Amino acid sequence: MVYVAEFIGTMILILLGGGVVAGVVLAKSKAHAGGWIVITLGWGMAVAMAVYTVGQYSGAHINPAVTIGLTSIGEFDPKLVPGYIAAQIAGAFTGAVLVYLAYFAHWKHTDDPDAKLAVFSTAPAVRNIPANFTTEVIGTAMLVLGVLGIGSNVNPIGQETDLALLFGSGIAPLLVGLLVLGIGLSLGGPTGYAINPARDLGPRIAHAILPIPGKGGSDWSYAWVPVVAPIVGGVIGAQVFNLFLGG
Amino acid sequence: MVYVAEFIGTMILILLGGGVVAGVVLAKSKAHAGGWIVITLGWGMAVAMAVYTVGQYSGAHINPAVTIGLTSIGEFDPKLVPGYIAAQIAGAFTGAVLVYLAYFAHWKHTDDPDAKLAVFSTAPAVRNIPANFTTEVIGTAMLVLGVLGIGSNVNPIGQETDLALLFGSGIAPLLVGLLVLGIGLSLGGPTGYAINPARDLGPRIAHAILPIPGKGGSDWSYAWVPVVAPIVGGVIGAQVFNLFLGG
Amino acid sequence: MVYVAEFIGTMILILLGGGVVAGVVLAKSKAHAGGWIVITLGWGMAVAMAVYTVGQYSGAHINPAVTIGLTSIGEFDPKLVPGYIAAQIAGAFTGAVLVYLAYFAHWKHTDDPDAKLAVFSTAPAVRNIPANFTTEVIGTAMLVLGVLGIGSNVNPIGQETDLALLFGSGIAPLLVGLLVLGIGLSLGGPTGYAINPARDLGPRIAHAILPIPGKGGSDWSYAWVPVVAPIVGGVIGAQVFNLFLGG
Amino acid sequence: MVYVAEFIGTMILILLGGGVVAGVVLAKSKAHAGGWIVITLGWGMAVAMAVYTVGQYSGAHINPAVTIGLTSIGEFDPKLVPGYIAAQIAGAFTGAVLVYLAYFAHWKHTDDPDAKLAVFSTAPAVRNIPANFTTEVIGTAMLVLGVLGIGSNVNPIGQETDLALLFGSGIAPLLVGLLVLGIGLSLGGPTGYAINPARDLGPRIAHAILPIPGKGGSDWSYAWVPVVAPIVGGVIGAQVFNLFLGG
Repeated sequence: MVYVAEFIGTMILILLGGGVVAGVVLAKSKAHAGGWIVITLGWGMAVAMAVYTVGQYSGAHINPAVTIGLTSIGEFDPKLVPGYIAAQIAGAFTGAVLVYLAYFAHWKHTDDPDAKLAVFSTAPAVRNIPANFTTEVIGTAMLVLGVLGIGSNVNPIGQETDLALLFGSGIAPLLVGLLVLGIGLSLGGPTGYAINPARDLGPRIAHAILPIPGKGGSDWSYAWVPVVAPIVGGVIGAQVFNLFLGG
Repeated sequence: MVYVAEFIGTMILILLGGGVVAGVVLAKSKAHAGGWIVITLGWGMAVAMAVYTVGQYSGAHINPAVTIGLTSIGEFDPKLVPGYIAAQIAGAFTGAVLVYLAYFAHWKHTDDPDAKLAVFSTAPAVRNIPANFTTEVIGTAMLVLGVLGIGSNVNPIGQETDLALLFGSGIAPLLVGLLVLGIGLSLGGPTGYAINPARDLGPRIAHAILPIPGKGGSDWSYAWVPVVAPIVGGVIGAQVFNLFLGG
Repeated sequence: MVYVAEFIGTMILILLGGGVVAGVVLAKSKAHAGGWIVITLGWGMAVAMAVYTVGQYSGAHINPAVTIGLTSIGEFDPKLVPGYIAAQIAGAFTGAVLVYLAYFAHWKHTDDPDAKLAVFSTAPAVRNIPANFTTEVIGTAMLVLGVLGIGSNVNPIGQETDLALLFGSGIAPLLVGLLVLGIGLSLGGPTGYAINPARDLGPRIAHAILPIPGKGGSDWSYAWVPVVAPIVGGVIGAQVFNLFLGG
Repeated sequence: MVYVAEFIGTMILILLGGGVVAGVVLAKSKAHAGGWIVITLGWGMAVAMAVYTVGQYSGAHINPAVTIGLTSIGEFDPKLVPGYIAAQIAGAFTGAVLVYLAYFAHWKHTDDPDAKLAVFSTAPAVRNIPANFTTEVIGTAMLVLGVLGIGSNVNPIGQETDLALLFGSGIAPLLVGLLVLGIGLSLGGPTGYAINPARDLGPRIAHAILPIPGKGGSDWSYAWVPVVAPIVGGVIGAQVFNLFLGG
């Protein structure tokens, strides 16, 4: 059941998150050239709505960096980790297929293969692997630190709660969406803020497989950065919270 | 009483939703060329305010696709369906007349007849009926899945609630508005996201009837798509929720 | 005490509301040409913050159209009306003086006298008095209908509450700010949405009095429209709510 | 403990606040030229997320003007003031270093030294010290007045609460973020709204020290304005609240 919820949550995340990039970058879309505010608000609402839909069932991690970060501070059952991550990647892949279908009529009108890849996966604005890696680490550390802060804030201090679920209900899902909005606005400039291995890898696989007219390569040489760096950042964020604010 | 509430709610939806399109596309408007963020935020607030005003009376479906979707999973009384839908279409028509009046001085200054029709009804960016139909199905499935998710999230699990009313009070109406904001940002690019038969049909009738200076045809050949596809999508979204997350 | 609260609330409304127009239209401002989203979001937050600051003391009408609309349905004490309106106009005047000071260095760098007046008072995009009057009536009716809807929604049905205070606490002030955001986005295009006699008249007096470099006339011939039409609209909105949804 | 919380909170404020300026002004950033809406929403979310993360531990002043303002009306312990301010400045410095790292690849691609300084500290649009000072006083008075209003609004009147903590939990941190969004939209045009001595001074020190390629001077002649004026404004805002609305 929790795996189904993670699958659906991550599917929604990518349907709406990949969708807003498609809307802004693909030719002839009514959202074309909508700007950074449209991109970041679209991703923020994608997160919020994914968490509202499935947060009450699985905690709506919808992100392996969150799952691993929580596990690293003993707040999530290690036995569930492989299933969560598999469901997240499969859900992200499925969401990307839905984006492909929702924008079916627009692929052939768009010339730039980089724009088509951007609908699926992130690419750095300036390719500098150590710098790009650092940006993703900082962004994801902020994400996990903020998620834990929101969870402990919205729930009264000293009241026992299930951390895996605490940001899944009430106003918290909206706040997590606004946190991602803030990270996107502020830290998305250099790398497009993957901050989530499933968000980047699942759709990249979809890009490689789908019969997208006029697509280019899937940029596999960069693909490890938005997978590894967010995991490092997620663990750092969880440790900072645990060390200085938790308990 | 519930029918009056649905009428007023859908009237507000179109007054504010059609109004924001008028503001952005009609000549000499202060909102002219305000961009996709203005359009989508305007529709999001239109939904939120419609639901806040009448949600406590009728559940504020303000959308036949929601009414039919809820009915398809046994969460709404089939006997009320015809009255709800009639009230929604009549309310949408009335809201469109109010938009016509609010922007009365601007019609004659605007040359493009397509822009005038866009104030009332949706049109696809690339006319491809199977693709347009698919986009509207996906968008409306997301809408109904999200509405049901929000409802079950905001209300504690295992607590008996009236699903027809659960997204009508507290923070839920704002969240439903933000859901529509998210769908607009992310999935509105190809077809302008009708995702609501009444939202499209009622104003299209108003466009056909009203003495709008320099108007063109009402594009009746496309009119069935934003009526039929949202109903299909609404049922799919409700079934997905019921099968995988509900109960 | 309630008059002081209305004074401060309306002062905040105009400090932030007039301020955002100054930021967008005055030369050399960092917000210059920020667009309709900046204007409307600025006014929305102006309303929300005014209501959060004084709502718990006076209900934060900060608008004679709200005061008179509520009185017309028996939800506000007629004896308090003159004091409320006087405090609102005086507060709006004071807020406009603060905007003049906050943007002190920018007036002389701005050539267009109409832009300077726009910081203080509204002007129609197309001057057509019957149409402008109608737009302001519709916008203000929507405002008062929405305010009453929010109030009755956020407070449980059937629970006795003080309608004068009900939209002054909790999440309601934010929702009222978002309502004004929605009205601005959707209905602000033709006349700049005064929807509040004090918001327009108080700052217009300030414009006439203040030593603004290179200012033009204060357009007194239009001044009665954003005073009278909002009162008509406020009463209509309150009556619609009372007739069809209230009680 | 409270000092650690203030340090982390102000670090988050500057990581996200300085980050959004970097995203908009540095060359080759995906957020480049995102506009005033991106800047102000980024700072608003920066405040909200900083307060959500540490508000439950220290009240999340994250601003010496708030700390001193609260102290001036007897709502904060004077013995804690030096430690709070030191932690805030140190946190702001650290946040600025993180922004430098997150945008590491972009400094050398950006020519304008003023743009680089703008990532760290504020500068007036029109240099007029008395006017700039006045703008910062008005903006910060609005901030502290609004913070106190939100605190007393969200907490029921007459119920004893710890004012230092009252805006640190529940919906209040979001509202404080939206207050700063509103101040930025409306009053940020002339000076870039420091409204916080730590927010301006800490990053200015970082700018002076860090090996930023092609940087110019740190504009120390202006540096006292965004330190002194916010303190004056913070005390005025607190006194206005205390005199007219508090107690």
